[in-house]
Amino acid sequence: MCAISFYIQFANTEDKQEFSKYPTKAGRRSLSRSISQSSTDSYSSAASYTDSSDDETSPRDKTQVNSHGSIDFCVKNIKQAEFGRREIEIAEQDMSALISLRKRAQGEKPLAGAKIVGCTHITAQTAVLIETLVALGAQCRWTACNIYSTQNEVAAALAETGVPVFAWKGESEDDFWWCIDRCVNTEGWQANMILDDGGDLTHWVYKKYPSVFKKVRGIVEESVTGVHRLYQLSKAGRLCVPAMNVNDSVTKQKFDNLYCCRESILDGLKRTTDIMFGGKQVVVCGYGEVGKGCCTALKALGAIVCITEIDPICALQACMDGFRVVKLSEVIRQMDVVITCTGNKNVVTREQLDRMKNGCIVCNMGHSNTEIDVASLRSPELTWERVRSQVDHIIWPDGKRVVLLAEGRLLNLSCSTVPTFVLSITATTQALALIELFNAPEGRYKQDVYLLPKKMDEYVASLHLPNFDAHLTELTDEQAKYMGLNKNGPFKPNYYR
Amino acid sequence: MCAISFYIQFANTEDKQEFSKYPTKAGRRSLSRSISQSSTDSYSSAASYTDSSDDETSPRDKTQVNSHGSIDFCVKNIKQAEFGRREIEIAEQDMSALISLRKRAQGEKPLAGAKIVGCTHITAQTAVLIETLVALGAQCRWTACNIYSTQNEVAAALAETGVPVFAWKGESEDDFWWCIDRCVNTEGWQANMILDDGGDLTHWVYKKYPSVFKKVRGIVEESVTGVHRLYQLSKAGRLCVPAMNVNDSVTKQKFDNLYCCRESILDGLKRTTDIMFGGKQVVVCGYGEVGKGCCTALKALGAIVCITEIDPICALQACMDGFRVVKLSEVIRQMDVVITCTGNKNVVTREQLDRMKNGCIVCNMGHSNTEIDVASLRSPELTWERVRSQVDHIIWPDGKRVVLLAEGRLLNLSCSTVPTFVLSITATTQALALIELFNAPEGRYKQDVYLLPKKMDEYVASLHLPNFDAHLTELTDEQAKYMGLNKNGPFKPNYYR
Amino acid sequence: MCAISFYIQFANTEDKQEFSKYPTKAGRRSLSRSISQSSTDSYSSAASYTDSSDDETSPRDKTQVNSHGSIDFCVKNIKQAEFGRREIEIAEQDMSALISLRKRAQGEKPLAGAKIVGCTHITAQTAVLIETLVALGAQCRWTACNIYSTQNEVAAALAETGVPVFAWKGESEDDFWWCIDRCVNTEGWQANMILDDGGDLTHWVYKKYPSVFKKVRGIVEESVTGVHRLYQLSKAGRLCVPAMNVNDSVTKQKFDNLYCCRESILDGLKRTTDIMFGGKQVVVCGYGEVGKGCCTALKALGAIVCITEIDPICALQACMDGFRVVKLSEVIRQMDVVITCTGNKNVVTREQLDRMKNGCIVCNMGHSNTEIDVASLRSPELTWERVRSQVDHIIWPDGKRVVLLAEGRLLNLSCSTVPTFVLSITATTQALALIELFNAPEGRYKQDVYLLPKKMDEYVASLHLPNFDAHLTELTDEQAKYMGLNKNGPFKPNYYR
Amino acid sequence: MCAISFYIQFANTEDKQEFSKYPTKAGRRSLSRSISQSSTDSYSSAASYTDSSDDETSPRDKTQVNSHGSIDFCVKNIKQAEFGRREIEIAEQDMSALISLRKRAQGEKPLAGAKIVGCTHITAQTAVLIETLVALGAQCRWTACNIYSTQNEVAAALAETGVPVFAWKGESEDDFWWCIDRCVNTEGWQANMILDDGGDLTHWVYKKYPSVFKKVRGIVEESVTGVHRLYQLSKAGRLCVPAMNVNDSVTKQKFDNLYCCRESILDGLKRTTDIMFGGKQVVVCGYGEVGKGCCTALKALGAIVCITEIDPICALQACMDGFRVVKLSEVIRQMDVVITCTGNKNVVTREQLDRMKNGCIVCNMGHSNTEIDVASLRSPELTWERVRSQVDHIIWPDGKRVVLLAEGRLLNLSCSTVPTFVLSITATTQALALIELFNAPEGRYKQDVYLLPKKMDEYVASLHLPNFDAHLTELTDEQAKYMGLNKNGPFKPNYYR
Repeated sequence: MCAISFYIQFANTEDKQEFSKYPTKAGRRSLSRSISQSSTDSYSSAASYTDSSDDETSPRDKTQVNSHGSIDFCVKNIKQAEFGRREIEIAEQDMSALISLRKRAQGEKPLAGAKIVGCTHITAQTAVLIETLVALGAQCRWTACNIYSTQNEVAAALAETGVPVFAWKGESEDDFWWCIDRCVNTEGWQANMILDDGGDLTHWVYKKYPSVFKKVRGIVEESVTGVHRLYQLSKAGRLCVPAMNVNDSVTKQKFDNLYCCRESILDGLKRTTDIMFGGKQVVVCGYGEVGKGCCTALKALGAIVCITEIDPICALQACMDGFRVVKLSEVIRQMDVVITCTGNKNVVTREQLDRMKNGCIVCNMGHSNTEIDVASLRSPELTWERVRSQVDHIIWPDGKRVVLLAEGRLLNLSCSTVPTFVLSITATTQALALIELFNAPEGRYKQDVYLLPKKMDEYVASLHLPNFDAHLTELTDEQAKYMGLNKNGPFKPNYYR
Repeated sequence: MCAISFYIQFANTEDKQEFSKYPTKAGRRSLSRSISQSSTDSYSSAASYTDSSDDETSPRDKTQVNSHGSIDFCVKNIKQAEFGRREIEIAEQDMSALISLRKRAQGEKPLAGAKIVGCTHITAQTAVLIETLVALGAQCRWTACNIYSTQNEVAAALAETGVPVFAWKGESEDDFWWCIDRCVNTEGWQANMILDDGGDLTHWVYKKYPSVFKKVRGIVEESVTGVHRLYQLSKAGRLCVPAMNVNDSVTKQKFDNLYCCRESILDGLKRTTDIMFGGKQVVVCGYGEVGKGCCTALKALGAIVCITEIDPICALQACMDGFRVVKLSEVIRQMDVVITCTGNKNVVTREQLDRMKNGCIVCNMGHSNTEIDVASLRSPELTWERVRSQVDHIIWPDGKRVVLLAEGRLLNLSCSTVPTFVLSITATTQALALIELFNAPEGRYKQDVYLLPKKMDEYVASLHLPNFDAHLTELTDEQAKYMGLNKNGPFKPNYYR
Repeated sequence: MCAISFYIQFANTEDKQEFSKYPTKAGRRSLSRSISQSSTDSYSSAASYTDSSDDETSPRDKTQVNSHGSIDFCVKNIKQAEFGRREIEIAEQDMSALISLRKRAQGEKPLAGAKIVGCTHITAQTAVLIETLVALGAQCRWTACNIYSTQNEVAAALAETGVPVFAWKGESEDDFWWCIDRCVNTEGWQANMILDDGGDLTHWVYKKYPSVFKKVRGIVEESVTGVHRLYQLSKAGRLCVPAMNVNDSVTKQKFDNLYCCRESILDGLKRTTDIMFGGKQVVVCGYGEVGKGCCTALKALGAIVCITEIDPICALQACMDGFRVVKLSEVIRQMDVVITCTGNKNVVTREQLDRMKNGCIVCNMGHSNTEIDVASLRSPELTWERVRSQVDHIIWPDGKRVVLLAEGRLLNLSCSTVPTFVLSITATTQALALIELFNAPEGRYKQDVYLLPKKMDEYVASLHLPNFDAHLTELTDEQAKYMGLNKNGPFKPNYYR
Repeated sequence: MCAISFYIQFANTEDKQEFSKYPTKAGRRSLSRSISQSSTDSYSSAASYTDSSDDETSPRDKTQVNSHGSIDFCVKNIKQAEFGRREIEIAEQDMSALISLRKRAQGEKPLAGAKIVGCTHITAQTAVLIETLVALGAQCRWTACNIYSTQNEVAAALAETGVPVFAWKGESEDDFWWCIDRCVNTEGWQANMILDDGGDLTHWVYKKYPSVFKKVRGIVEESVTGVHRLYQLSKAGRLCVPAMNVNDSVTKQKFDNLYCCRESILDGLKRTTDIMFGGKQVVVCGYGEVGKGCCTALKALGAIVCITEIDPICALQACMDGFRVVKLSEVIRQMDVVITCTGNKNVVTREQLDRMKNGCIVCNMGHSNTEIDVASLRSPELTWERVRSQVDHIIWPDGKRVVLLAEGRLLNLSCSTVPTFVLSITATTQALALIELFNAPEGRYKQDVYLLPKKMDEYVASLHLPNFDAHLTELTDEQAKYMGLNKNGPFKPNYYR
């Protein structure tokens, strides 16, 4: 969640696993699963038309055919296509930036010739992305980056229109890799672009189909984890294709962190605990973008917020924004709510948990699920009581209760939702990155990991302005000259964030 | 005021003057004078003990001696030293960061051996800086960067304690260069460090004393203009010493722009017009840091604010922060206040001024004084009426009045004050930059223009935290390792701002 | 929700039903039911331990006995008492004001001799109230004011400890009145105090047991509807006992309206639509306390809010708070969200619904469920599509969708929750009103409807301050004399609100 | 400043002076003078065209005649009329509500026959009021309520147009009463309405011209002091005419307190101390309307604000608004700024002043100038140093400095300005009150002190809405009936505030 921390983390730490030292399945899977869970939650409010008493036959064992006679897909039930289409149509209404991109670029087909394999969550929003890529000329094959998050009816709708999709909700470990392989390994068709979320697809191609990998024109990677793996590969000198890190674009970062968290901290706390914010004493650990978002929202609703920081520049900003900067131990006894947003680990320790007052709520908005030392709470003298989904009371021997949300995992993914608008920004960024890499003149991008060029970043932003009926001002020639700028941007230097 | 624009401007424009193509006196002087004026205003609230019926003899024609018998200085009246000392003492109370630095570094005398020539505004705050440099081991000689801004009694107090100061309020053009020369050109003492604000001193040494210039260990430059001149020199391959651009440090930038403008927009408008903010319709042109500061403050006080932007990323931020993004022409008729913060020119045109409603207030918080096309208002059909200092009514033939503040110059410098706290941040940054350049191992800094290293930037911030009774958290060893950070920072990557 | 409107409404309208002109069952029931529904929703997040496959025998047909051998109660299942006790214990943790009142007044037993019949929602929070009344010396008999809102296990827990409770979830119309009668009509016990929520119990006693009614020492009424009925009775000269309107206490009003709505507008919108607030154009109809709460919260989260008002004083406040005051028709086409908080009817008309843009969200935070003309939407050319609980898409022939929340009923009751803290304020107010009426010297209260005395109102507030660790300042004798105040209050004049 | 406190104070205190027990001149004068001073300050920013080297002849000794030949006036210099006219014209631009009233009511001349004696500050704004009264049909004679606050050129302009004005800046005590007498005591003209600010004129007529007093149709009183004196007179049974207290109208109160103080606290602090608000620790004593205004503004600019309160209802509101409620002694050591807004005395004691930290700023926004125990600071061990107008440093023996503003008098009057918009609201309220009293049918108003009827209050508000381009919604007939309201108001019950 906190871009800057990630950079620091990945840039400086020496003891990183190399990409090729593949994590054990167990390890990776459990990581993946914890993300799965979050992701599943995050889409939980979407209607599901999947009959729960659905037949239990594995999709791999069924023969299905779409109305055009194709059997090159594997989904739960092709008959759900109509329901899925409706979901996609509703999603389109909130993703006007992609639709607009579709219209603007449809004539020139900038992805004509692109053969994209994709591995992402398969939801209505992703479907809008895929169909946009197709509209721009690409051929796509798709699989899921998560064994739980597929919306079956959406997968069916895609398959029905002819996109080879290999994914269903509730895949096994084995299914997961089988689907990836089916996606890549097909006769008479060789991928030349990769769109990945987590790095599993990239890894699979790299390992199993090195000859395909070498001919890929570009990789677009969405997740922190996947980006990390790419940087490792690059460091090890094994990245033989240009890759684009779309996780760290300015627009996406602002939305994922500042704007999204400003809303989801309230939503996550309210849905789980029905807390009244007015007058509550809250400590927010970390005053990066996520922390800033949380503090702004809580203060606006009448909470009394203080912060902890390790970095004097952020601390000084907190002061100027009206927040007391404290050490956690100084204030822990008085707090009603403790929120972590540091990207670090053991920010809230067992000793501090011991000193919290009865009823104190503890949750994590940061990156890692080790910010709160939850493991230390799994000890015999403490009783865990699950009072609602995602809400545990940890009860001390003297009866004191601490309210732990989402077991210390990301509150905003576990207990809130990601607005479609934010997903639209991500999807648009992915589409533009694919276009950029596919169309870049030979040699512009080397075998390295790139950030999205500022101009594309600005274009993503501009495509979303109509949602707000916002009207940009255009530089006059004279002004552009005075500023030394091109009238169409980029307006920001590359290091701007 | 707007760092980013400057970068863009200087980085991209081709038609820049070379440093060696020295501007004509007239040109430079008028620039300098417009800064002078602002600067004078900005310190106007400081008490002045200078008798206005002072003798009119030029300081250059007087022989003065301080109580230690020294005559190596030239100030208005050495007898004012006691008043100046009191001013300095009061300033010290608000500049605890420098005092703290003085105490921490006094033992090791990190500037022992440094011979610093300085050319800055000479005020009580500068005196605290100079005396800190002396306390850290430096020898200093000082002159004024502005012919109007010297506080005579402060200059006297410095001279009395033995700092050779050459400056007084109301110097002539000739005096100005004479003072600079006296500062540099002295027997038995050769400067090895330069602290400059505007580049005049640097230029003088470069031109007149090339042998001195070559042996200088470092230049610290404070102003946009001076930094610009250094970059030009560097580009032209003529910068033979390392220089540090302290104008663009993160801490300084945040304070100069966001935090300072958040307060000075209110102060500047109130002092000049007594406007009530509640319910006023305001358009802010430009949503960079300055614009953000203005918008935040005005919205908080009940104004209804909309913005104009050329950059979609900033525009999207404005939307998410709750401001309508409009074109100026769409809204100009309804506005009660128009504020420019773009760094660009002709942002408010004569045509737009013609369409403003009666009583509309127009002012500039941005960099250049050409943001409002004031020149276009100096035409025969319009009547100018000065109603207060810094406030003109421009009257149209039909009786409509537009209220122009500070003739379109910087409102926050002309009609508000710069808080001592902000000056403290600047002075501390300058001191640390001098220490860094003077102590850096041979070869660390090349013949180039550098930004302040993040670690020093963080140190400036940390020295100011005690003002807020803010308590930083320290990383545990385990956490530092996990984050890949040194426990003492830097915590931010170099590109952070 | 909007106290002021109610007053106006009831004070000025001529054509009010008299209390004795009893509404037809159908009419009353449907009113009651709409309240029921809301109320049920509002407690929906509380855990329910009631087995849904519970036996279907009516509680009236079962013989149950508690562990003390009593059969003087009628609940769903006395065996659920233990679950209910746990719920009550959890509620106690958030209702420290009542617990504190219990402790302070337990010695003097201010309700010794009080025989209270109560008719309210039966929830864990109410149980804390009832047990407080008992602790203060009262005898209580209780029934439910709503056929859906009873928490069966809480009713069981109360019955188990000896409070005669007659209530269960899912009563029939006939059950409802049977329970009320059983509550009042019992041998050897005659009520002398009434605590009512809606006026049904009061009406029943007034009609069926006039001799009991005459001897009652006081009625405490909680709801707008019940208060209205009391004022009518009083106007008609038939109120022969003092009654206290606790709905309009300052503390309760501030929480029910301003503070509660400030949070629930966000929560209600988010839970139903997952909307992102940043940059959304919102119009709030009505700038009373509810409107002020909504506007504050939405503006703080980055929405662009304008308001409509009929009252120039409120309109001027909106201006000064930074909101444009518009007519709904002027802005309806641009709005993303329309919120009503007027207490009036047909504030949003069909014509305006016709002009809304695709995706516009419409909801009601005001009192009446006729603020939005929902009836006009039930016409053949429009399609209703229920997309989630409480969320309908109304689809126009051209495909435009308007998103209607809770069918125009109160959003904050239907789609959000009432925080326990607010319920605590209500319950404490009720307890103090009972104490006041029961202990008032003969003649202090006439046969009229009273507001809670300011001193009691202040006491309710003071009992809740420890939740915030707030420390009141005490007047010195000298100061109290100077202000003409008693050191212990009341500090406010009676007309303060 | 704080209406509620006044009510309490005057309603409850036993030891009130009776109106007839006229304060000694010394006493009254000193009160008046302290008000004078403030008032003078408050208009200090208005341009003054009075030549300071003006002739020193007392206006009483000069014979002046206006261009119409009239000598029925006494001003400093009738020749300044033209300058005054210009001032009045500028003021008219900001007082469009009065101009609008003038236009609407000019036809029906609602004040035809009214003979008004007025005693107020004589400023450009007052002139707009007076000329409005004349335009509505009234005959006016005017004098100043304050010996310092008259704008001589405005008085001249009024005299020139034929309004008999008796006032100049710098009157003596004797002049003051002479002017009042000349105003009342004139042949062939007998006042039938009084407009007063402070009660001096009312007292004079009551005492000296009892026969005139008895025939007056109404008194409109603006000030707290004057209202107090009227209530005393009424209590004593000696008020034989109806009087209207315009000080406590809702609109005026909101602006004088909440909205005005929200801006003037920032302005007052900034102009005097150039303080930077961000991160400052501030305690505000009293959370009434004035305190709420101060807290809102300071919090918005990044200060960390806590409050002290004696009243639990206000304290609870402070909690919900996000402010810690503390006792002053608990926090005094940490505070950067202490602000009183209580209406009480000795809120900040010498003991607390002793414990403040170096540099702490202390000021008063409340009613009385005894909120800070300034007297206790006038003791030999403390040194007072005046560092600027309105700013004293109080220096303790150990060197600690406390910064006292305006010697504890009202900061917003002493060190800020009252916006014309607020004066417009006051003047409009006065005009409407005069119209109401003059036109009320016999018997509607008894010999008592009245608040402005809500309908007039609402009318004042509505006249100011066009300044904000605000558009009121009008009730439909159906809605008005449903609400039991008249379509034209009043919309608020009389007790609303």
